[in-house]
Amino acid sequence: MDYGDPQSVERMRADFDRQGAMSTMGITVSDITPGRVILEMPFNPAFSQHHGFIHAGTITSGMDSACGFAALTLMDAESEVLTVEFKCSFLAPARGQSFRFEGDVLKSGRTLTFTEGRAIALDGPQETVIATITATMMAVRGLKT
Amino acid sequence: MDYGDPQSVERMRADFDRQGAMSTMGITVSDITPGRVILEMPFNPAFSQHHGFIHAGTITSGMDSACGFAALTLMDAESEVLTVEFKCSFLAPARGQSFRFEGDVLKSGRTLTFTEGRAIALDGPQETVIATITATMMAVRGLKT
Amino acid sequence: MDYGDPQSVERMRADFDRQGAMSTMGITVSDITPGRVILEMPFNPAFSQHHGFIHAGTITSGMDSACGFAALTLMDAESEVLTVEFKCSFLAPARGQSFRFEGDVLKSGRTLTFTEGRAIALDGPQETVIATITATMMAVRGLKT
Amino acid sequence: MDYGDPQSVERMRADFDRQGAMSTMGITVSDITPGRVILEMPFNPAFSQHHGFIHAGTITSGMDSACGFAALTLMDAESEVLTVEFKCSFLAPARGQSFRFEGDVLKSGRTLTFTEGRAIALDGPQETVIATITATMMAVRGLKT
Repeated sequence: MDYGDPQSVERMRADFDRQGAMSTMGITVSDITPGRVILEMPFNPAFSQHHGFIHAGTITSGMDSACGFAALTLMDAESEVLTVEFKCSFLAPARGQSFRFEGDVLKSGRTLTFTEGRAIALDGPQETVIATITATMMAVRGLKT
Repeated sequence: MDYGDPQSVERMRADFDRQGAMSTMGITVSDITPGRVILEMPFNPAFSQHHGFIHAGTITSGMDSACGFAALTLMDAESEVLTVEFKCSFLAPARGQSFRFEGDVLKSGRTLTFTEGRAIALDGPQETVIATITATMMAVRGLKT
Repeated sequence: MDYGDPQSVERMRADFDRQGAMSTMGITVSDITPGRVILEMPFNPAFSQHHGFIHAGTITSGMDSACGFAALTLMDAESEVLTVEFKCSFLAPARGQSFRFEGDVLKSGRTLTFTEGRAIALDGPQETVIATITATMMAVRGLKT
Repeated sequence: MDYGDPQSVERMRADFDRQGAMSTMGITVSDITPGRVILEMPFNPAFSQHHGFIHAGTITSGMDSACGFAALTLMDAESEVLTVEFKCSFLAPARGQSFRFEGDVLKSGRTLTFTEGRAIALDGPQETVIATITATMMAVRGLKT
């Protein structure tokens, strides 16, 4: 797969930096390749649920963003990406020193992009898949104002 | 439907108050009845995505919590609630002065509870359904430590 | 809501009649209104699973078709409908003399239509919601050959 | 992974043979290993939708069964498997001479098993992933009558 546009990485990083939600949660970009984006987040008690694990919605934010930006890497320069829908399964508690969110494009079309991803808890040398996502992303053109 | 336990509301409020994620996002409890919980959140740029709307993951956090707590209202005193999975659809941009998250129990079983919910953007007198969720919740016993 | 095209009902019925799957499963059209389609199916042991209930995939076929045709009622004359994705939850065993599948449009856009629906088992005077669906449908133009 | 029971394969095949839906659709077992089941189906116009492709609900039946039986291979001898919910995405039309349905266990617990799978269209030498599924399966004990 090739980037959808020579400036794909720059555009993606610019969009990422404009997301208040990402900086508030401490999520950063770890790696970008065509059709694949990896994000990272340290454990942060400000986003815990009542057992002290990270809230499912925060894990979802990371997985959704990884998938959305993975889709964006293959879109043309006129396109912005919107999340149509996603389904997330929570395999294990979100317990760990940090978390990695991987997003992959399954199939990229002119309008819709099918993606999948996962959240991985890092605890010392141990890596555990704690959640999975499948998400439909949409290319929207002419949204910029 | 009846509450699953005479202390259901107190237990739910205590669990809610222990969630760092809820207070960080400014989400509060608006109403609790058996099998139905309503939460609210003001617009907060700290949780925006790159168009200035609220991030899909934050909207999901509110909907997931409303559904999880709705399930908890019908569970017995020994139970805690965990999210097994959810699917969210994003019907419109999360634009508004504030947001209401409604969670409803569809069917409550000993182990699994099926829920559905929605996020509503409030903009002056206008109410718009911006997202929907269906979520499977699980009663877990003996988790308390 | 209005029909998307004066011939919407005729087009929908013609599409329905061309579906081998519907006649094989004995699914018929019960009611059509703008944005809402109701289908019916008698119990048929040819579509049972190993406990003698109707197979989840068959219940899904009915719900998916109800939602897809509900979306089609609002589309213009050039459009055909394709299922992008759906999520189904199975609340109770598919036990009954017959089944009703209801599909409703939540939001209709030029390209995507968000729908939801349910399967209801009919057993004498008793009606039980046995499954729910949320489905994203896509209008495809120029597919006819 | 090991089989959940020395008779897992025999139990799975017996359950499969009791499913009217599988034989009606012409779906057969291709391969069974612990945590993974592969099914196959020839193209059959009796299960077409209105463009002559296989109906999404039929593709779903194959994927759901592959995932359910994959979960069953890891369950103990007292357990039966029920589908709690699934989400399916349809990446490409179900066009082909035959179809392969792969189901894999992601995580197996005492009560819930998380699975994922896919449908692959076979057209001469060409293999195309046409759909994906993620499904939650439940072990039910004491259901046999």
